[in-house]
Amino acid sequence: MKPLEGITVLEFAQFMAGPSAGLKLADLGARVIKIERPVKGEAGRQIALKNLFLDGSSLVFHTVNRNKDSYAANLKDPEDLERVKKLIAQADVMTHNFRPGVMEKIGLDYETVQQINPQLIYATVTGYGAVGPWAKKPGQDLLIQCMSGFANLTGNADDNPIPVGAALSDLITGVHLSQGILSSLIRKEKTGKGALVEVSLLESTLDFQFEVITTYLNDGHKKPVRAKQGNAHAYLGAPYGIYKTQDGYIALAMGSLIRLGEILQCEDLTKYSDSDSWFSQRDEIMDILRSFLINNTTAHWLGLLESEGIWCSDVFDYETLLNHEAYNVLNWDQKLQLLSGEEVHTTRCPIRINEERVFAEKPAPRVGQHTEAIIKEFNL
Amino acid sequence: MKPLEGITVLEFAQFMAGPSAGLKLADLGARVIKIERPVKGEAGRQIALKNLFLDGSSLVFHTVNRNKDSYAANLKDPEDLERVKKLIAQADVMTHNFRPGVMEKIGLDYETVQQINPQLIYATVTGYGAVGPWAKKPGQDLLIQCMSGFANLTGNADDNPIPVGAALSDLITGVHLSQGILSSLIRKEKTGKGALVEVSLLESTLDFQFEVITTYLNDGHKKPVRAKQGNAHAYLGAPYGIYKTQDGYIALAMGSLIRLGEILQCEDLTKYSDSDSWFSQRDEIMDILRSFLINNTTAHWLGLLESEGIWCSDVFDYETLLNHEAYNVLNWDQKLQLLSGEEVHTTRCPIRINEERVFAEKPAPRVGQHTEAIIKEFNL
Repeated sequence: MKPLEGITVLEFAQFMAGPSAGLKLADLGARVIKIERPVKGEAGRQIALKNLFLDGSSLVFHTVNRNKDSYAANLKDPEDLERVKKLIAQADVMTHNFRPGVMEKIGLDYETVQQINPQLIYATVTGYGAVGPWAKKPGQDLLIQCMSGFANLTGNADDNPIPVGAALSDLITGVHLSQGILSSLIRKEKTGKGALVEVSLLESTLDFQFEVITTYLNDGHKKPVRAKQGNAHAYLGAPYGIYKTQDGYIALAMGSLIRLGEILQCEDLTKYSDSDSWFSQRDEIMDILRSFLINNTTAHWLGLLESEGIWCSDVFDYETLLNHEAYNVLNWDQKLQLLSGEEVHTTRCPIRINEERVFAEKPAPRVGQHTEAIIKEFNL
Repeated sequence: MKPLEGITVLEFAQFMAGPSAGLKLADLGARVIKIERPVKGEAGRQIALKNLFLDGSSLVFHTVNRNKDSYAANLKDPEDLERVKKLIAQADVMTHNFRPGVMEKIGLDYETVQQINPQLIYATVTGYGAVGPWAKKPGQDLLIQCMSGFANLTGNADDNPIPVGAALSDLITGVHLSQGILSSLIRKEKTGKGALVEVSLLESTLDFQFEVITTYLNDGHKKPVRAKQGNAHAYLGAPYGIYKTQDGYIALAMGSLIRLGEILQCEDLTKYSDSDSWFSQRDEIMDILRSFLINNTTAHWLGLLESEGIWCSDVFDYETLLNHEAYNVLNWDQKLQLLSGEEVHTTRCPIRINEERVFAEKPAPRVGQHTEAIIKEFNL
């Protein structure tokens, strides 16, 4: 039995943050029903990476919405709305990411919905919170990375700000949403009481930087400075970073520079006997390492360092990784068959429960694929 | 009442991933007791950013361990171990990140502990899973970013691999750990059954790339290629990225290039009428935008674009953000007083429950600060 079996989630949320929370809940056993407008469905169906589409919806949509049902409803139609309210009365959780005010207009705001179902966990995602000068700004992943200071942490000192090449803000907000939902479900099991759970892309992206921001706050508000080259963390000293070798790259994590110098037989390093200098003279030290490590291959250096317990690694791309035995033992990917006959080759849930890897049972739904069945099942 | 009030978590986990899960549980109301070796305490107390320490432990440690108790025990001492077992018998959750085999030796592996407390949620973090060629490799954040393919997604096409300047793998693994714990607690409330929850840094960091990896898997295993300059996502077309302006930067998210060209009055853009070209001719288009946007200020461009509903933003550093009204309304930071009298200025939990922001009540503990009190309270 998957841990969330028996829990019903209504997902009004669109795009990435909310649906990524729904995906984890679905993978952990919850019944997740997407409430979508008829025909077109949720807006995320049309947001594509590299223009890849399957059965009329983007590949990204299929990735984020596997294992869910779809119920089509026009919330502006009184009859449809009435049915949705009956569904809400029987659900455990609902999520949405409409801008402040929209659900109030429809009549599905928290106050109203509580009267239909006082045990409901009502969970919302906003861009910047419900109040303040940015409350109505569009909450989009790249923009939040940029507004939250995050794009200034990655890359090298003289680089432009560099955002992360994945939907960081969306995904981290999605996990906070699910944490709020799950902990409120635990309380509900004990008290019978529902809850309002609110997260915002901005706060979640700030939380992701909590160790860096705390350093900034306690360090006299001095700006974090990225290393000149090979930067991996603005606040960590040498050797922390990535270095070019004769045939590729090597990553070095934190550790004693003296020992590193001894093992590498690089005398220029061992003179930095004061560990404070590893941070204060970081660029100079990383320069020394850079001109040293370029003279031999990644395998050579790893052979030397790993046997001595130095924290280091190769730098893989997907091709190298996905063909590696260490990837194969994970049994990490899965294939899901669409109604159209097409196949989606995707990944699975990263959480193992009772030694079982969690795979999905079904692909993302077509818009309204389960409307009729749900009307009967829930007697709408 | 915070949602997790009444839940007791024993945190044997060290460093960042496990303790960051414990932090969220603590902030959401759980009683989190760190089980630390006497005197020295957990190893993370000595891992510092920028050599910053408070009351003998690193600032990072204080950041990740606020709101927790500390119980000192030498697990190799039979008497201490006996007391810890009595504590486990009364707990709801325990977490650890020892390498495979260590807890078996001590006698606190899942099999054994289940006999003491069949309702316990036993949650573990490993680097690469318990089996396979990498099972004994050190699981460290930067190294996992590098091994998982992630460092090849960020930065520009000709850059070296660029890791994220924050503990991405640790933090994302921590949230998956907490998701597994929370969903298992929900099942426990219903069935009375405990569970084994396992996450690994590698799988969690792969999960973070699920949309990109799925694209790779379905796109004929073609390598993701970063944009030549201003890259923000290997699989998204122009204008998606960050551009230099006369006095700073501007971020542009996805949207119609034609409309963007019209609003900017940049005719070179409007000729890309085929939206497929926005991806296939991305570098060329971004070049045009780059040489156009440099000619005026960020404020000028934002004024023009925001009023037309284009998804764009400034790029902030901490100084700009933390002095902005939109940050102030969040009420995002909090100050905690240490026993030493020193003060930690840090951030709060990003999840709001029932319209309340969640602040911590207490700072990180000294090693063994609560040992005596816990011995009495739990009758050890």
